[in-house]
Amino acid sequence: MFLYFRNCDFFFYWSVHDFDDTSSVADSKAFLAFSTYATIVILKMMLLAPVAWYFCFTHKVWVYTNKLDDAETAEDVERVRRCHQNDLENIVPFVVIGLLYALTGPDLSTALLHFRVFVGSRLCHTVAYLLPLPQPSRALAWLVGMIVTFSMAYQVFRTAHL
Amino acid sequence: MFLYFRNCDFFFYWSVHDFDDTSSVADSKAFLAFSTYATIVILKMMLLAPVAWYFCFTHKVWVYTNKLDDAETAEDVERVRRCHQNDLENIVPFVVIGLLYALTGPDLSTALLHFRVFVGSRLCHTVAYLLPLPQPSRALAWLVGMIVTFSMAYQVFRTAHL
Amino acid sequence: MFLYFRNCDFFFYWSVHDFDDTSSVADSKAFLAFSTYATIVILKMMLLAPVAWYFCFTHKVWVYTNKLDDAETAEDVERVRRCHQNDLENIVPFVVIGLLYALTGPDLSTALLHFRVFVGSRLCHTVAYLLPLPQPSRALAWLVGMIVTFSMAYQVFRTAHL
Repeated sequence: MFLYFRNCDFFFYWSVHDFDDTSSVADSKAFLAFSTYATIVILKMMLLAPVAWYFCFTHKVWVYTNKLDDAETAEDVERVRRCHQNDLENIVPFVVIGLLYALTGPDLSTALLHFRVFVGSRLCHTVAYLLPLPQPSRALAWLVGMIVTFSMAYQVFRTAHL
Repeated sequence: MFLYFRNCDFFFYWSVHDFDDTSSVADSKAFLAFSTYATIVILKMMLLAPVAWYFCFTHKVWVYTNKLDDAETAEDVERVRRCHQNDLENIVPFVVIGLLYALTGPDLSTALLHFRVFVGSRLCHTVAYLLPLPQPSRALAWLVGMIVTFSMAYQVFRTAHL
Repeated sequence: MFLYFRNCDFFFYWSVHDFDDTSSVADSKAFLAFSTYATIVILKMMLLAPVAWYFCFTHKVWVYTNKLDDAETAEDVERVRRCHQNDLENIVPFVVIGLLYALTGPDLSTALLHFRVFVGSRLCHTVAYLLPLPQPSRALAWLVGMIVTFSMAYQVFRTAHL
């Protein structure tokens, strides 16, 4: 926001540098980045519900009835449900701590690194859960997500102590 | 914020009226509306815990013991638990995306429409789950909630891209 | 934002009342307090995942396979999972309503009281669930957490009605 005034009697120069940036939380770049990545990861989580339906229909079972005779089928369907549950348990902390982290005014490139690594790790985790890939891959993806969340939590604690 | 003054031949009075309105996110009308509807829908979700207790006591079972002999009773009690789980999986995305949506500065009437339709659809969903109503009603309520969330997510993506 | 200029003498009045305090949500003391306690309680929730793993390894079972023969072992492992689920169902509402509550500009000491009592009640709840302590303790801890959340929700409703 810039205002320039000229008058014959006086010259007045007033410049409000990045007023909009500081006044509104929603305009900070780190917060914009958080918005995008949080929305991506939440949409990914929501899309597991249709996937669960698809698995139910193709396996001709109803996922939550607990009357699954065939162990193989039960395992396939249960896997989607557990993946959804694991997403809830990991993405919710990321969203909450990420929001607080974005408000502490972090360095933009650091914040982007955190958000991108987390989103990538969760996408890997979902793929590793649903295909499924052999075990160490899923545990590693989960671990990377946890480390990113703890790193952001550490930053929040350093800034906001009361 | 920087102020530069040149020339001493003037009188300058500067007052920042309604500073608080623009500076604080919490004062925007769309955000106030979000606060109200998010709180309503979260309280509805929390009230399912006492409902689950009530069902357990009236059916003389303890919901999570997995030692349910009578299939009919198990189904009744399990239904409340699954309704709670479905709420978690749908209301959490709404709250997160709705918060980011409210911060993008949407048109107030559009925002109100989104929030009201979502809250209404979730109330219908809970009623349809607990009574229970015949199936298409529950799936429709769930679908309406999903569409509202996706519509808000689209708006967030359009505003906050990075 | 209004600008008034008078061109008489050289008198300059500039007053930006507590610019930093009001302009950034992240600088209000109640919000800082919320950041800290929300992060603590979310980290506590996340740490239940490693605890679940530890229980699985020591009991030589895999928690989610549903092929638990020994009822005693199944009960031990299931307890951690239910504790995690209960945390999700109670901490998520706290975080959402607490965030909105912190933005209503509450009295700092009142806000701190709410946050501390909630965090304390959830810690007691987890201890009572995992040891486990005899029943009334867990239900009481849960009830205290619920009451704190409802108290904050009441405050949000009083401020933000639309």
